[in-house]
Amino acid sequence: MNPTPPSDTEERAMRHALSLASNGPATGVNPRVGCVILRGDGSIAAEGWHRGAGTPHAEVDALARLAPGEAAGLTAVVTLEPCNHHGRTGPCSEALLDAGVARVVFSVDDPGEHSAGGAERLAEAGVAVVSGVLVDEGTEFLRRWLTSERLRRPFVTVKWASSLDGRVAAADGSSRWITGTAARQHVHEQRAAHDAILVGTGTVLADDPSLTARGDAGELLPHQPRPVIVGERAVPRDASILRHPRGTIELRTRDLEKALGELYADEIRSVFVEGGPTIATELVRLGLADDILVYLAPTLIGGPRLALGDVGVRSIDDQQRLRVMSVTPLGDDLAILARTQSGSS
Amino acid sequence: MNPTPPSDTEERAMRHALSLASNGPATGVNPRVGCVILRGDGSIAAEGWHRGAGTPHAEVDALARLAPGEAAGLTAVVTLEPCNHHGRTGPCSEALLDAGVARVVFSVDDPGEHSAGGAERLAEAGVAVVSGVLVDEGTEFLRRWLTSERLRRPFVTVKWASSLDGRVAAADGSSRWITGTAARQHVHEQRAAHDAILVGTGTVLADDPSLTARGDAGELLPHQPRPVIVGERAVPRDASILRHPRGTIELRTRDLEKALGELYADEIRSVFVEGGPTIATELVRLGLADDILVYLAPTLIGGPRLALGDVGVRSIDDQQRLRVMSVTPLGDDLAILARTQSGSS
Repeated sequence: MNPTPPSDTEERAMRHALSLASNGPATGVNPRVGCVILRGDGSIAAEGWHRGAGTPHAEVDALARLAPGEAAGLTAVVTLEPCNHHGRTGPCSEALLDAGVARVVFSVDDPGEHSAGGAERLAEAGVAVVSGVLVDEGTEFLRRWLTSERLRRPFVTVKWASSLDGRVAAADGSSRWITGTAARQHVHEQRAAHDAILVGTGTVLADDPSLTARGDAGELLPHQPRPVIVGERAVPRDASILRHPRGTIELRTRDLEKALGELYADEIRSVFVEGGPTIATELVRLGLADDILVYLAPTLIGGPRLALGDVGVRSIDDQQRLRVMSVTPLGDDLAILARTQSGSS
Repeated sequence: MNPTPPSDTEERAMRHALSLASNGPATGVNPRVGCVILRGDGSIAAEGWHRGAGTPHAEVDALARLAPGEAAGLTAVVTLEPCNHHGRTGPCSEALLDAGVARVVFSVDDPGEHSAGGAERLAEAGVAVVSGVLVDEGTEFLRRWLTSERLRRPFVTVKWASSLDGRVAAADGSSRWITGTAARQHVHEQRAAHDAILVGTGTVLADDPSLTARGDAGELLPHQPRPVIVGERAVPRDASILRHPRGTIELRTRDLEKALGELYADEIRSVFVEGGPTIATELVRLGLADDILVYLAPTLIGGPRLALGDVGVRSIDDQQRLRVMSVTPLGDDLAILARTQSGSS
């Protein structure tokens, strides 16, 4: 027998669960998940969310707020399919069964190799299971994590700052500054929202960046992404990036697909790519860029220094169409966030 | 004795006069001017605006709506200094004196070689004259005309459509289409708001454009700018541009400063530049571009086809800073209008 379709109350609870999920950390290996436990009359008995690897999953966090036996016969509304594996914590499907929950409503199927199967396990045990509630919102919310799970590599945001005519530096290589302070502060916040920052050895040699995520006053932000250097050229031992508060990962390869695979194996799920043009071009050409974040400054520069080189487009029919997600004015500049085909879930 | 400073009523009347002025044609050799005749109690006795070369000036248009003698002792509020020369119509300073106006309040000084001096003429005859009322708004409203008068060349808008990475075509030269229909329709409206459209012979040979200003349904818009071809290469006699409803101007030179001088002598006060990169680059390099209008499409193309080449910027300190005037979403695209140093009055 099919379970009853989701009620309006359950949809509202799902929206609330999504907002609970957003309390969790945007970075790290685990998805952000929220959970609401509903009573029969539609009132909320408990709510919870996941606070990052090693802490309880959202369902367990919510159940822990109830007295023993209180969850019996209630409904759990969860943003992601309850997991079914023994990781650092026990499987949520078992926790829900142990608590005696009668009905589970979730949004997004778990695509995980090891963690999927929770819905099936619950249904087999007689729980009414409803999937796909607010699935568009749920999928959008988990886009980076889902993309990374699907492609078995980190989600890749390629960022550059350019003039209105697409230049990232003047002919002599100087580029400080094209954008204003508001745009540069925005970059720091984006760094802090990724697991790692990736640059090529060329950028390290040319700019000697420190790649820390800093606040308005120059202070280090709480979350520092891991700096990653990719390329075969030697990095001087006195390079700023090697003094980064978190250890720098050096990947001595030009094979970006391989490099991303290694980062994924190292539990890095999102990468912010800050240069230079060679790496950005290669990522776009190979279809490995998921989000493109362009800071556009109202200035004209001309000359040979471009954000992207040859991305393999011969004719206009081959152009790589993006979907604009947001246009944000930052001082005199614009931040344009667009997603590619691979970044659209 | 200095005249009384402008009253709030006169400022309000000036704002109204500016909106009257905008009823006039945006193109052509004459500025758009509005005029309000105020009674002593602040009520409006008459209003007028200029409808284009050969028709009465705004002051005369307003005065003509009054009975003989009715203007005696009243105040004229005008957006531009009343002219002082005998052109196709008589000088407005004389018309105001003949009507017996006691006070004249205007916004922007007339920079014209032949037409200036109206304020002086009126003051000498005993009229109270106040200048500079809402002068920022007045100057902004007349920016194109004032720039053209000041520089003795047409106001120049350089337009291009590019990908997010600054490309105007794919490697093989194909470019249909980078932007969507809304952006392309917007281009037609911009064409109709200029006296002329300018392209290089290279663009004529490569794209064979017709350069007509058309509406949504493909119909010709009421105002068709003159098409102008600049360059030394021969244009085939069957080129579409030579069948343009208005005669095409062919300027067989690569000297853009000289070409703009010739257009000015031909009573062309605004030029919309549509290609190609060689001409756009040269105009930017020479400081002859006043407005830059970029249609930015969310797509990546890469490769060698850029909107601008070498504009003479060696180091970042030499970059040509622009001032963004508007960012308009058009379908998936953005229209970014920015002004250069020469275009800022």
